[in-house]
Amino acid sequence: MIIVKGGVTTPKGFLASGVKAGIKKSGRADLALIYSEVPAVASGVFTTNVFKASPVRVSIANLRNKTHQAVVVNSGNANCANGKQGDKDAFAMASFISEAMELTRSEVLVASTGIIGHRLPVQKIKDNVPHLISELSENGGSDFAASIMTTDTVKKEVAVKIKLAGEVVSIGGAAKGVGMIHPLMKKGGHATMLGFLTTDVSISKACLEAALSEVVEDSFNMVSVDGDMSTNDSLFILANGLAGNRRISLKGKDYLAFLAALKFVCVSLAKMLARDGEGATKLVEVTVLGSKDADSARRIARKISTSNLLKCAIFGEDPNWGRVAAAAGSSGIDFDPNKTDIYLGPAKVLSNGSSMKSFDKEKVRKYIKGKDVFIKLDLKSGKHSASAWTCDFSKEYVAINSEYST
Amino acid sequence: MIIVKGGVTTPKGFLASGVKAGIKKSGRADLALIYSEVPAVASGVFTTNVFKASPVRVSIANLRNKTHQAVVVNSGNANCANGKQGDKDAFAMASFISEAMELTRSEVLVASTGIIGHRLPVQKIKDNVPHLISELSENGGSDFAASIMTTDTVKKEVAVKIKLAGEVVSIGGAAKGVGMIHPLMKKGGHATMLGFLTTDVSISKACLEAALSEVVEDSFNMVSVDGDMSTNDSLFILANGLAGNRRISLKGKDYLAFLAALKFVCVSLAKMLARDGEGATKLVEVTVLGSKDADSARRIARKISTSNLLKCAIFGEDPNWGRVAAAAGSSGIDFDPNKTDIYLGPAKVLSNGSSMKSFDKEKVRKYIKGKDVFIKLDLKSGKHSASAWTCDFSKEYVAINSEYST
Repeated sequence: MIIVKGGVTTPKGFLASGVKAGIKKSGRADLALIYSEVPAVASGVFTTNVFKASPVRVSIANLRNKTHQAVVVNSGNANCANGKQGDKDAFAMASFISEAMELTRSEVLVASTGIIGHRLPVQKIKDNVPHLISELSENGGSDFAASIMTTDTVKKEVAVKIKLAGEVVSIGGAAKGVGMIHPLMKKGGHATMLGFLTTDVSISKACLEAALSEVVEDSFNMVSVDGDMSTNDSLFILANGLAGNRRISLKGKDYLAFLAALKFVCVSLAKMLARDGEGATKLVEVTVLGSKDADSARRIARKISTSNLLKCAIFGEDPNWGRVAAAAGSSGIDFDPNKTDIYLGPAKVLSNGSSMKSFDKEKVRKYIKGKDVFIKLDLKSGKHSASAWTCDFSKEYVAINSEYST
Repeated sequence: MIIVKGGVTTPKGFLASGVKAGIKKSGRADLALIYSEVPAVASGVFTTNVFKASPVRVSIANLRNKTHQAVVVNSGNANCANGKQGDKDAFAMASFISEAMELTRSEVLVASTGIIGHRLPVQKIKDNVPHLISELSENGGSDFAASIMTTDTVKKEVAVKIKLAGEVVSIGGAAKGVGMIHPLMKKGGHATMLGFLTTDVSISKACLEAALSEVVEDSFNMVSVDGDMSTNDSLFILANGLAGNRRISLKGKDYLAFLAALKFVCVSLAKMLARDGEGATKLVEVTVLGSKDADSARRIARKISTSNLLKCAIFGEDPNWGRVAAAAGSSGIDFDPNKTDIYLGPAKVLSNGSSMKSFDKEKVRKYIKGKDVFIKLDLKSGKHSASAWTCDFSKEYVAINSEYST
């Protein structure tokens, strides 16, 4: 696998664009489109929030179709808690694209991010669709990534290439965060986590769905900025087959190679989301080792990564590892505290449940001043592990989120 | 029921004290004692954290005894993650009191709050026990309440009197917070939530346990400052029988009257904890109505009360109610969003899952500038309800918690 500069337009046959439709008060780009030149198989996973935004409901319905060619996205408005009008507006947004591009409406997927409870400005979207389509380009990945941003400070894009039985297959991705980030997406959020994956691999829809469902658990579903699950979280993948590889329809060697590359893309985007979390100054990676099963490891890692107290300590560059223990112990997963070791960066700070007297406190103090903080918990009770990603918790986060709707 | 000025020494036969033992760096009072002149029945509920502090383990063990006469508490050190040495030290702390007061060791309960992973300074405690005992007084409730404080800005005390078949019965209480506050205490949790209840009611140990277990669910277990569950959370009650009422040993009329008064005391202390939460400028009460069962109502209310985004909005006096919907929908409890109403103070902002266009935005903006913010969710799907208490989330919270261990 090689990492290449690029994003959603790196795989063959994908075009993208992003324009200013006047949805955001800031006047920045807020309407974006991905288009596959040939019909693609698609899959998606979405927020498990009871309050699902209208675009989420529309995309879930449209994904029953066999093929898809477009994903249209707006930022600046979540189109959530708008009742039946919201659903009508999300359908209308898909229809503007399907009509202009001669697709069926269910071949178009839709996503929104922004404030909850304000009606989507459909007329602005309709007025800007011709421009959005005319801007579609093989080099449009970057405009796409910019147009889906809300409180993001940087674009989040990645692309890789792998060889499957001699054919080069590409996977590209773009995502946005970076508040209300605590996704738990399954088949079937304001800022909000949105992810878009494209690939030219030839794969069956069933295999694509299986791959996405598996990969999301150890990537996007392990990111948390603030512990708040959005109403709009959505992750899409489109596979158009233009790489010409032998079609993947079974979970064999090619599938596993594709899965590994897809996981790399998703984890890379997940870490970008955490690093750019609202107000963040550091990326925090929490790894739980020695767990009796993978789900327990995930739950403990995720609980630690959502500790406000720990994240405040990391912002303050204070090696207060007791907060790691307290958070781990409150995950609802039973484990033996007297077998547990905790590492803060290079230093073992807890050994068999008892604090280490001898670790090099100066080394740890220096370590925690860096941009990346790694925390490791070894339960010594099994062979499973999981990692979660978050950021520190700063005064800036509070500032950003105390003045959002006004 | 009447509310009286007082605390843990309001019920007959209870003495208390608080002194400076040099455990806290600040030099403030940090060692406290409650003493009942006659043997009392006692009960306790404790953190469900896997990492339970040593004093929690010692108190759970000692509660197997039939009667108790003392509770000794230190602030400034949690005595958690100290392995077997920690357990020895917690036992020693109880022994200093039992030996000096001629009690058996298991008649003494113990609690600690402060930093995790530092050894308890037992010698300082031992040296100050004589002074602690000599200071015991009928008017010592207030010194007790002051000595258990960590980041608390105010003492938390309450006392009530009720009549049971002609006899006046008193219940007093003291508590401390105000960070790492998200207790889930059951029978058998740095700052830390500690609560101490005293009463002169005559009641069987079994009835006292039942009352405490019932009341904690709708009071202390519904408070959250930061979503972080402590390793030291403890709530104790001692009942010494000196009121001379007909002994309560069945769940009859007297029990229910006692239960109602006890609930009032616990909810009062719980709200004091939330109002004084680290960095707090407002008390937030979240009530969920119309739930199919009480537990669902509690879980939804508690999820809303732990939304960082909502709490930042309230700090910013920004009526961003969409965050209430998003948090409610992520509780893991299924409900019908299309039947749900949300009220922000006096205004209905969501009706049957759809945002209200017509509410008086100026009225809501004015409302949210007050010191108390009430949020109500009506699921219209049943007869059960629950309330949760929290505070807003300020830059000051981050400041307090980014420099704790250093």
